[in-house]
Amino acid sequence: MNKSIILHIVGWILSVEAAFMLLPLICAVIYQEKSGFAFLITMGIGLLIGLPLVIYKPKSKLFFAKEGLVSVGLGWIAMSSLGALPFTISGEIPNYVDALFEIISGFTTTGSSILKDIEALSYCMLFWRSFTHWIGGMGILVFVLAILPMSGGERMHIMRAESPGPSIEKLVPRMRTTAKILYSIYLGMTLLQIILFLIGGMPLFDALTITFGTAGTGGLAIKNDSMLSYSPYLQTVTTVFMFLFGVNFNIYYLILFRKIKTALRSEELRAYVLIVLTAIILISFNLGGFKGFFSSIHHAAFQVSSIITTTGYASVDFNTWPTFSKSILVFIMFIGACAGSTGGGLKVSRIVMLFKALMKELSFLIHKRSVKVLKFDGNKIEHETLRSVNVFFACYMFIFAISVILVSLDNYDFTSSFTAVAATLNNIGPGLEVVGPLGNFSDFSYFSKFVMMFDMLVGRLEIFPILILFSPATWKK
Amino acid sequence: MNKSIILHIVGWILSVEAAFMLLPLICAVIYQEKSGFAFLITMGIGLLIGLPLVIYKPKSKLFFAKEGLVSVGLGWIAMSSLGALPFTISGEIPNYVDALFEIISGFTTTGSSILKDIEALSYCMLFWRSFTHWIGGMGILVFVLAILPMSGGERMHIMRAESPGPSIEKLVPRMRTTAKILYSIYLGMTLLQIILFLIGGMPLFDALTITFGTAGTGGLAIKNDSMLSYSPYLQTVTTVFMFLFGVNFNIYYLILFRKIKTALRSEELRAYVLIVLTAIILISFNLGGFKGFFSSIHHAAFQVSSIITTTGYASVDFNTWPTFSKSILVFIMFIGACAGSTGGGLKVSRIVMLFKALMKELSFLIHKRSVKVLKFDGNKIEHETLRSVNVFFACYMFIFAISVILVSLDNYDFTSSFTAVAATLNNIGPGLEVVGPLGNFSDFSYFSKFVMMFDMLVGRLEIFPILILFSPATWKK
Repeated sequence: MNKSIILHIVGWILSVEAAFMLLPLICAVIYQEKSGFAFLITMGIGLLIGLPLVIYKPKSKLFFAKEGLVSVGLGWIAMSSLGALPFTISGEIPNYVDALFEIISGFTTTGSSILKDIEALSYCMLFWRSFTHWIGGMGILVFVLAILPMSGGERMHIMRAESPGPSIEKLVPRMRTTAKILYSIYLGMTLLQIILFLIGGMPLFDALTITFGTAGTGGLAIKNDSMLSYSPYLQTVTTVFMFLFGVNFNIYYLILFRKIKTALRSEELRAYVLIVLTAIILISFNLGGFKGFFSSIHHAAFQVSSIITTTGYASVDFNTWPTFSKSILVFIMFIGACAGSTGGGLKVSRIVMLFKALMKELSFLIHKRSVKVLKFDGNKIEHETLRSVNVFFACYMFIFAISVILVSLDNYDFTSSFTAVAATLNNIGPGLEVVGPLGNFSDFSYFSKFVMMFDMLVGRLEIFPILILFSPATWKK
Repeated sequence: MNKSIILHIVGWILSVEAAFMLLPLICAVIYQEKSGFAFLITMGIGLLIGLPLVIYKPKSKLFFAKEGLVSVGLGWIAMSSLGALPFTISGEIPNYVDALFEIISGFTTTGSSILKDIEALSYCMLFWRSFTHWIGGMGILVFVLAILPMSGGERMHIMRAESPGPSIEKLVPRMRTTAKILYSIYLGMTLLQIILFLIGGMPLFDALTITFGTAGTGGLAIKNDSMLSYSPYLQTVTTVFMFLFGVNFNIYYLILFRKIKTALRSEELRAYVLIVLTAIILISFNLGGFKGFFSSIHHAAFQVSSIITTTGYASVDFNTWPTFSKSILVFIMFIGACAGSTGGGLKVSRIVMLFKALMKELSFLIHKRSVKVLKFDGNKIEHETLRSVNVFFACYMFIFAISVILVSLDNYDFTSSFTAVAATLNNIGPGLEVVGPLGNFSDFSYFSKFVMMFDMLVGRLEIFPILILFSPATWKK
């Protein structure tokens, strides 16, 4: 394995992260908060480790899928370890394990919090916490790719490892251009949401942080009651943008290049819209008279958007909803958003492919000789793709089962243990019962917190970059 | 589709079932119970419908996989519809939907009961209820196969559709012989358990019924407290036999023909033993001082054997156990017993194959060029087998998710809804909370009961025979 190039990339990540910390630093200056010094110190540490690695040129340029996966896995762990420092240095989250949990929850856009009183944090810390969602949503490596001089092969392996979804589409031959365009779309949509928030009378600080959480489909809130106290207009803007950030960014790319027809033919988009609408309708009916008809639809739409895109904001304490609605929410947790979006979960395209494979099997049993070709968006699904989707699904379920067993050592009720893992593995944020939208993860043991940190990283990076780090064979000469 | 041959087979099933009802009838005579007349009437109805279909010779002998699946699916539904009649005719379970639930639970060897007071049933009904486990465990069609004059192709398709597990092994070229040998092993083990029960001082009626439930891995008890009140010796005999009936019967077949080495090399057997031992050790430690060390191991072993083989007897109210132990039980529910045993669940061999496929994928990522061949018991796993295992797994999870959502319309807590479906789909019997080992399924709505009847059939017949019945394409000319 080419270790020197991996360290080089990790160096870049730490340096870029240090640069990103300028923003919370500015925030601290504006609000005149002492905690700002914690960012200065952390930036120093980040650059001290990062810059030498950046300057040191790797001997070999060899770069394969393995190097890509290890860079991404290690990069995210390094980034989280550094990103947690300001919380502990400032003393606002004195325990480093808790700080690490909180920042991994931020970068992986999960949104699970160990804070019992969110509003006790200083503005600059709240800003940093939400800003990590924005960074993690698109992927810091994709950002590094956009600025780093690298070959096409390297870029492809990194992007493949960091981007969610079954296969990276061959949209544009030049990865650097793609990365730049994707980041521009991301930035544009972020700005639009901030403006719509400001129009609705939201304070600038709230508008920025909540938008970061929406764009990255993160969901760490800046209030203890998540988004319950905002106006229906502001909640509706959030509903719409959560939904939009759950769409595959390739769709926006296509629309940008006026290929609207191709965009609308996307099977994943159609399935996504269908699932969202079905879930909203079913939950609205189930809620029935819950504060009236429109209110039911309003809250059903908010929660469905929030959970399927794995954001995790709440407009209502859905822990008190009837079990039917809660069950729907639990299962759309697993479906997740579209591939190539900022959301987590299994991804709609994988579900569609699994469903098609199932239909094919059934049709094969009925019409013995029919040899149907599996297609997705008009293209044949390669045997390799389907196999890796299947393996991914099985692996996901294994990790899920083992995590629930481990976390249940803390002896919370089954629903809490089950949904705590579902919420972290799928990068949602809140679960049910103890970890409901108005609850938090603070009382879990260190052991459970580490299990869930692992789950958050595994969920965000889609298993293999993290699993490969823990495989002895990776480190053999 | 060759409908005439399917009806012919259904006719055979109904006639054989009517013949089987002689046993509860004898039981009624011994205990001088009036309910025995219900069996006489039902036998009459069964023969009235069954015999003409048996006598009527099918025009065509064409028989493919589709015919096999439809025969099995329809056969099981017909068998259940007839088998439920005695309960309703005698008035002991006046509601036919409840009676149907109870008998499907019996035939599919699930063991979930709608009875609030089991001990109120007459002896002959209790006998019939337990006896259906024994019939359903090995598969009534396998029995029909053993006595029916049929071609090898027909037999293979039926056996394939009714036998649990990823692929039927090519043990013996002559299916009829295989079916007879398997039934002999089944009968032999059943007799051995009955004898061991009698030695322990168990009354004959209890010994018979509980053995039927163990052999079929069913778990419908004859007491309201399942097996809590039996002696540790009787409980231990049950533990051992539940474990043994969860082993692939091919292993016994091999041992019978002195191929002991081959038998012990079975990867599924090894994995099964490993999982059972691990679960017992973990739960024993977790229970800690729970009535002392040996008692902890005793109850852990009983419950693990009971749940992984999907039997469902209880030696203790495990609903009161710590969450860690409960979570382990919930997840071994899904693993299930070995293929080719009488147990349900996903089957150990499928789990092993999924795990191997996952390891291969990981190794592929690390050593780019390694082309490892997936092997199981020394034989290459065919691409087709692996694909169908994957499709099966995905389909299982789809059905599971949709069922939980539908059942949660009844608005029980999430854990109850979740484990009620897990317990019926995997043919276990009890779940947690409302449907815990001392609870029952009586208060669910008709709708939920139908969903769970569907799940029980889908679980026992491994999805496709039932799914194919509901597919419109099956019935097109």
